[in-house]
Amino acid sequence: MPVGTLATVKTLLPGEVAATGAGILLVNAYHLYLRPGHDLIARMGGVHRFMGWDGPILSDSGGFQVFSLSGLRKVSEEGVKFRSHIDGSEHFYTPELAMEVQAALGVDIAMPLDHVLPGTSDERAAEDAVHRTLRWYERCRAAQPHLATFAIVQGGVHERLRRQHAREAVAAGAPGFSIGGLSVGESKDLMWAMTEVVTSELPVDKPRYLMGVGSPEDLVNAVGRGVDMFDCVLATRLGRNGALFTDDGRANIRNAKYREDPGPIDPGCDCLLCRSFSMAYLHHLFRNDELLGYRLATIHNVRYLVRLCERMRRAISGGGLDAFAEEYLGRYRATDERTRMEQKARWTARGGAKQS
Amino acid sequence: MPVGTLATVKTLLPGEVAATGAGILLVNAYHLYLRPGHDLIARMGGVHRFMGWDGPILSDSGGFQVFSLSGLRKVSEEGVKFRSHIDGSEHFYTPELAMEVQAALGVDIAMPLDHVLPGTSDERAAEDAVHRTLRWYERCRAAQPHLATFAIVQGGVHERLRRQHAREAVAAGAPGFSIGGLSVGESKDLMWAMTEVVTSELPVDKPRYLMGVGSPEDLVNAVGRGVDMFDCVLATRLGRNGALFTDDGRANIRNAKYREDPGPIDPGCDCLLCRSFSMAYLHHLFRNDELLGYRLATIHNVRYLVRLCERMRRAISGGGLDAFAEEYLGRYRATDERTRMEQKARWTARGGAKQS
Repeated sequence: MPVGTLATVKTLLPGEVAATGAGILLVNAYHLYLRPGHDLIARMGGVHRFMGWDGPILSDSGGFQVFSLSGLRKVSEEGVKFRSHIDGSEHFYTPELAMEVQAALGVDIAMPLDHVLPGTSDERAAEDAVHRTLRWYERCRAAQPHLATFAIVQGGVHERLRRQHAREAVAAGAPGFSIGGLSVGESKDLMWAMTEVVTSELPVDKPRYLMGVGSPEDLVNAVGRGVDMFDCVLATRLGRNGALFTDDGRANIRNAKYREDPGPIDPGCDCLLCRSFSMAYLHHLFRNDELLGYRLATIHNVRYLVRLCERMRRAISGGGLDAFAEEYLGRYRATDERTRMEQKARWTARGGAKQS
Repeated sequence: MPVGTLATVKTLLPGEVAATGAGILLVNAYHLYLRPGHDLIARMGGVHRFMGWDGPILSDSGGFQVFSLSGLRKVSEEGVKFRSHIDGSEHFYTPELAMEVQAALGVDIAMPLDHVLPGTSDERAAEDAVHRTLRWYERCRAAQPHLATFAIVQGGVHERLRRQHAREAVAAGAPGFSIGGLSVGESKDLMWAMTEVVTSELPVDKPRYLMGVGSPEDLVNAVGRGVDMFDCVLATRLGRNGALFTDDGRANIRNAKYREDPGPIDPGCDCLLCRSFSMAYLHHLFRNDELLGYRLATIHNVRYLVRLCERMRRAISGGGLDAFAEEYLGRYRATDERTRMEQKARWTARGGAKQS
């Protein structure tokens, strides 16, 4: 899911997002609650009409943002008191309010408010947060019973808690499952271990969504562990910074070697950038901080991830996801060569994908 | 002509520029000579292919930029020595080099190198510059005889020099005529007086191009004085600043009154913004400095000027340009109400358009 935090996938028109093949996008309830306000968006006909996107929209509840962006937060059983990161104003966010916001936006899939802890939290604190998140999930569903609301599975880096939370979420009959609290600083080993613990507990016929992930290599690693959905600020943010996804790693378009390159960054890519413009032109745009460069690089990166998912879907249908992942991760050279080697080693050590 | 100084109309794809109805755009030889270099663009197949625009392109020679942007300039009969505004490197720009650059770009219409003086220059200095510009024009045409190269008519605010330069340019058989050195700080009265002096000397069957103009009100005033072409950084720059052209003046989209406005800025406009998005959404984008806002406002302003030209063309065909101009300038409320009143008064005092 391309990320449209503020009801815009940065630099792109809705039609351009659709042209990448992305079938669903994400907006953020926390940001839209603060500005321009969910009530205003409701009066404008809902977020689909507001931003001109008629496909499905998933909203993050803002739990992660309340706990990471805002100041002076205080958590109670009732909810979270926090200060806006924009103007310092004080707000009290409850499970019911998070759902009211998302219902007002009119999204297709909502996230419950969850109690987010730092990735380094000890088991006792993580267990309290898991139980609170479970209680809050029930309040969320009671508040908006007609809204499709995924359960967010927390539990930090503690296998027992991850497993327990996943089982309780399944028992609660959630329509889909989000894996939260990962990719927040823990090691990749732990991240994948926790992902596997959770997905192994989930039914195969309901969507699994790994929140806040990720990079091409993370997508391949996660799909091999049974994940279906992702949201990804990386593609758009890296695009605006001039870093382009390719099967051979990230290409920095500002690099002098592209100055006179008449070809596309990726001959196999069918995005607007690769079809219509040379690397020399994109390099020129970035060297001059031209906004068109940000657009074209964003389009390429979003299309790259969508195309990567298409390739994995084909590999899964053909029964060859393990082979695809091994080849892909072997070829993919991350900016940091060492990081890439570690990833490949981890993948191989695990015997490849355990489920598809 | 939308301005694509660096071979990009800021924020827009070539297809979006074409969709506004603009049939020709402008690039700047000075900027492209400095970066990425005209030689590189030539090796990439020329500026049309480089930027993906297959319509006509006019290039400014860079005379104005050499004299306004660069440092340490020194003018001799041979050319102008200047320092790059980017890196301080020293360059020697001659009429021949200006033409070599434009030929390498492969533009459809070129501008000669001219000797640009501050608008306040006295008659003696202005006369020297006129004669030098005439000599340089001959050198330009001799250097690239197959390139359509307009004459640039200078002469400051001195009627005698303007008339003399116009006549010499006509005698030289120029394929088109640019009016330079106006809209650089002189009063609007003087600007229009000089424009009329020049256009009254020019043949009716060759294009007249008023350089560096302009605003909607300036376009209407100039067309009434027989001008055919303009280049206009204002539309794109104001768009990125959130100022939108309307028949009732400039609307500042950041104004709180648009916060909850479900309608378009201009119900009569057929641009992508006005067809597809509310003012509330554009206001939201600008309040959050979202790049998509700059794009949509740019598209509106460029389309507004193209549509204004279409309306004037229809008025001319129907014989009613004077009536159109009087009504338009009467309605148009510039940001500064006093300025608007002065403009209308001047127009009326002149008895409306003298030629169409």
